[in-house]
Amino acid sequence: MRRLRTDEAPSHMGERVKLAGWMHNWRDMGKFGFLVLRDGAGTFQAVLDNAAEMEKLRGLQYESVLEVEGVVTPEPRAPGGAELHDCRVKPISPVLEPLPFEINKKEFKPGLAIFLDHAPLGLRHLHKRALFRISAEVMAGFREYLSQQGFVEIQSPKIVGSATESGANVFSIDYFGRPAYLAQSPQFYKQIMVGVFERVFEVGPVFRAEKHNTVRHTNEYVSLDLEMGFIKDHTDVMAMLTALLRHIFDRLKKSCARELELLEIKAPNVGESIPSMRLPDAQQLIFERYGEDCRGEPDLTPQHEAWLCEHAEQELGSELLFITHYPTSKRPFYTMPDDQDPSLTRGFDLLFRGCEVVTGGQRIHRYEQLLNNARQWGINPEDIAGYLQAFKYGMPPHGGFAIGLERLLMQLAGLGNLREATLFPRDLDRVAP
Amino acid sequence: MRRLRTDEAPSHMGERVKLAGWMHNWRDMGKFGFLVLRDGAGTFQAVLDNAAEMEKLRGLQYESVLEVEGVVTPEPRAPGGAELHDCRVKPISPVLEPLPFEINKKEFKPGLAIFLDHAPLGLRHLHKRALFRISAEVMAGFREYLSQQGFVEIQSPKIVGSATESGANVFSIDYFGRPAYLAQSPQFYKQIMVGVFERVFEVGPVFRAEKHNTVRHTNEYVSLDLEMGFIKDHTDVMAMLTALLRHIFDRLKKSCARELELLEIKAPNVGESIPSMRLPDAQQLIFERYGEDCRGEPDLTPQHEAWLCEHAEQELGSELLFITHYPTSKRPFYTMPDDQDPSLTRGFDLLFRGCEVVTGGQRIHRYEQLLNNARQWGINPEDIAGYLQAFKYGMPPHGGFAIGLERLLMQLAGLGNLREATLFPRDLDRVAP
Repeated sequence: MRRLRTDEAPSHMGERVKLAGWMHNWRDMGKFGFLVLRDGAGTFQAVLDNAAEMEKLRGLQYESVLEVEGVVTPEPRAPGGAELHDCRVKPISPVLEPLPFEINKKEFKPGLAIFLDHAPLGLRHLHKRALFRISAEVMAGFREYLSQQGFVEIQSPKIVGSATESGANVFSIDYFGRPAYLAQSPQFYKQIMVGVFERVFEVGPVFRAEKHNTVRHTNEYVSLDLEMGFIKDHTDVMAMLTALLRHIFDRLKKSCARELELLEIKAPNVGESIPSMRLPDAQQLIFERYGEDCRGEPDLTPQHEAWLCEHAEQELGSELLFITHYPTSKRPFYTMPDDQDPSLTRGFDLLFRGCEVVTGGQRIHRYEQLLNNARQWGINPEDIAGYLQAFKYGMPPHGGFAIGLERLLMQLAGLGNLREATLFPRDLDRVAP
Repeated sequence: MRRLRTDEAPSHMGERVKLAGWMHNWRDMGKFGFLVLRDGAGTFQAVLDNAAEMEKLRGLQYESVLEVEGVVTPEPRAPGGAELHDCRVKPISPVLEPLPFEINKKEFKPGLAIFLDHAPLGLRHLHKRALFRISAEVMAGFREYLSQQGFVEIQSPKIVGSATESGANVFSIDYFGRPAYLAQSPQFYKQIMVGVFERVFEVGPVFRAEKHNTVRHTNEYVSLDLEMGFIKDHTDVMAMLTALLRHIFDRLKKSCARELELLEIKAPNVGESIPSMRLPDAQQLIFERYGEDCRGEPDLTPQHEAWLCEHAEQELGSELLFITHYPTSKRPFYTMPDDQDPSLTRGFDLLFRGCEVVTGGQRIHRYEQLLNNARQWGINPEDIAGYLQAFKYGMPPHGGFAIGLERLLMQLAGLGNLREATLFPRDLDRVAP
């Protein structure tokens, strides 16, 4: 008999079918018992009333893998409107040791550290797995929209020969006795590939050897990267990001309706445009509205970001807010300075529900200007010769951005820690499992 | 005026339009000249017959970025049936230094080393970029089919705490003063995630610190990984791979028809099933047909793979061939041994046009068996505690495989070196650009 998925069973009413999955729940009432089987698709209830069959389950712990054959029978109170009767069970992989915590209750009780130590088990909780299904759909929506817009996917190397892309700290590798580094972003490669395809995207891991242990940083995360040529300025890139996020969230509302409901997540409605504010204006607003004088600071603190989002939500009716024109001195050497005020850049961040989730901007496209900037930033042009080569041989005005996948998910789901939005997080204390 | 892509221009016949791209070719005939502009979509010819406009191009080298305005005019001899007349040109990013090699001829002449040193330029060649468009479509086809089959995408960490997954050499990292390693595959994570989603896939980089410098190895490549639960045995996994490859190749024939034609690539027709041979039988065949006695060897050499593929093509009418039942001693500790002969495994390789492109098999799913095997392979269970945890808490029979993206592309396109199928290859000699 071919095994059915639990979500296929209700359409086989009256038939004898085979299901297989994990023992999600088992209530032994003596003469009969209720078994809830969980598989990749969902859960299904089986009623056991045969002593020999019930005996097979005695001593088995939750999460034992079972095959269950039975007759699909209408039961209005069961999810899906059906349950299995007249069941025969067959243990496939018995679990003999009690679980370290319950994963079949609505609420997930273990604290973060315990959960992370037991992620292979904890991720099976229906809420946890719903979250990572949403994560998969965010990636799918990202690729879907960009493919429609003529972007080509690239896979750039993660082992790189020089460590000079930006200010962030890099991990060093022993590369056959020579030093090499883990790429902190695909920045150089996606720019190079604008010279080939005009429009490119990449979904892949990035690595940051930063020692701060905060709720919104880890040392390895997934970056959704995009770079596009022949733009007017950074506002073209911001418009692309706006349309992309609208597509991703609208797609989620359809393809992940069940998961969003389970986790009580409301995906934002992205309108025609997202409000935008220049950094100096944002700092002036913080000063006036919240009384803290951060005018002239090169960047925003998490508290500033929270305030600005509060303002945007209350006054502008938006859960998303662009901040533009960060100072040239605080952005990487390849960032395009503003025409009017070259001490400011055509760079932007996107804030979402109180936290930065995207960084982007227009890049310098002329060789001489880029070379001069590299030198001014203290970078040896020889260390970035391959990157500079693209510019020597003609690059169009271009720009792009990077979305932190886990950041976006954290803000979307209202999680308190980036680690909850990461399958197997890497931080100062953790390189396993 | 909004810029059009070159492939949009022919539908604006008679209109004045703006194009922008790279100076792909420029033939200055004195009183007039032919400019070929290349953008992300293709190429378009512009006829210049105004001395002042032509003057703007003098001194500019190929690959200079230009804007060109002109009237779309029918010209049956031009690709797309149109060209631009009455043109005005505007240099955006002038290139002043001659290119190190020609990239606007049909043939691409530079040798591999020169090409790799100048990849940011060389990849712009129409043939080179066509190849990586095909690569992007292979990834898209992989994800598309698996999503349809209920697989969920995961992103597993590339920094790992232990180096004991298989026999391959790993790169070590300085992780905040402690040792860590670059993942040689997402194997453990995709298996763990079978416990969560049943069916998962991942597209991402893998790292191998192997010192052999061959035409079919690099030290970082893209792995298309899949793992699926509730299988009967390895043949379920082989059937999934067969259907997947059929989908990928059929999709390519539609979405990359132009690129396949340009590169004279014939994508194979994958039938209902792919012929399959047990390793001992394959070795017997080599002995009988080609006279080399490799019977009892634990693996095939590249020459053996070539012979077997020759046989499969001539006698079985297939460009693809499964080899199964590799010896247990040569496969990783988690490989499921065969019921009949436990010295052989339920593992397989897929050969394609003379070279292995996929490795897979059924895995051990019972905790005790896996633990025993780990010990027998000399692995300390504590080093793989997170992985073992998934099995302690119940895993179904499962299996999967990994397709080497660049390998598949190399064999599909008939390339002589894996580096030609890799955007920015990493090997013993090369970590840049």
